Amino acid sequence: MKDIVVRLSDGADITLRRAESKDLPSIVDLLADDPLGSTREGADTGYGPYEHAFEEISADSRQLLVVAVDEQEIVGTLQLTVIPGLSRRGARRAQIEGVRVSRRYRSRGLGAAMIQWAIRESAASQCVLVQLTSDKSRVDAHRFYERLGFAATHEGFKMSL
Amino acid sequence: MKDIVVRLSDGADITLRRAESKDLPSIVDLLADDPLGSTREGADTGYGPYEHAFEEISADSRQLLVVAVDEQEIVGTLQLTVIPGLSRRGARRAQIEGVRVSRRYRSRGLGAAMIQWAIRESAASQCVLVQLTSDKSRVDAHRFYERLGFAATHEGFKMSL
Repeated sequence: MKDIVVRLSDGADITLRRAESKDLPSIVDLLADDPLGSTREGADTGYGPYEHAFEEISADSRQLLVVAVDEQEIVGTLQLTVIPGLSRRGARRAQIEGVRVSRRYRSRGLGAAMIQWAIRESAASQCVLVQLTSDKSRVDAHRFYERLGFAATHEGFKMSL
Repeated sequence: MKDIVVRLSDGADITLRRAESKDLPSIVDLLADDPLGSTREGADTGYGPYEHAFEEISADSRQLLVVAVDEQEIVGTLQLTVIPGLSRRGARRAQIEGVRVSRRYRSRGLGAAMIQWAIRESAASQCVLVQLTSDKSRVDAHRFYERLGFAATHEGFKMSL
């Protein structure tokens, strides 16, 4: 991806770029600073598992881990995955996971700018569909995604192994 | 994957194996023989787009397209995708897409056997989570997934591009 700069409603210029390994501690902080993430994220046992996952993501051309950067500070992240498939006449679909925006940057248009970038990037990758799931407790997030043009047409089933 | 044989409740022995390119017309027939698939699937403009997608899937070690076979007949299909990610302490998740079972094989335990195989395969691939989305109109499918141990904890958002 090419780095892009988005201007927030209050004039701040934020860069969206591919994540680098040096960003990992900041990304983990963002993942943990979340009502659901607080119990399941953190580097209390070290960054090893995150580093291993980062290498897997970086080596896979269908994965794109993105960070939003204000000056040198990491203030947002998401992961975009392209999934080839047979259904819908052999359509590629794009999937968004791990969306986080730093508390101080919420309600300033950064999340919308990140998702709109992901939608454009998905279209550029010849995907015919963008999809994501959101925990049913995240009611504000649901309104956010609907405002951006998503429809909650599906039930999202999960099973922990 | 190793081929496996599952015995249905009525004694039929069905083989689950990796899909081959010769299976493609039968898989497309299964995708089209569905209330939602009937309008968005079919080879009326040729198999080209499906063949291209099949090649993409086959070349990607994180994609596994599976067929269920009775004698020489393709009677079921699903796609399993492994997605590396940072969240949940760098966890891999598995995703199930494109689940179809031939009409004559429904209510005989084949769908359950296919999903249970996918769950085992996901665990073998060190995934900590299996996920799928199901259109809100597929109420029977939702009961089916809940019986198998999935929970509808998420809203599934989609946007066509």
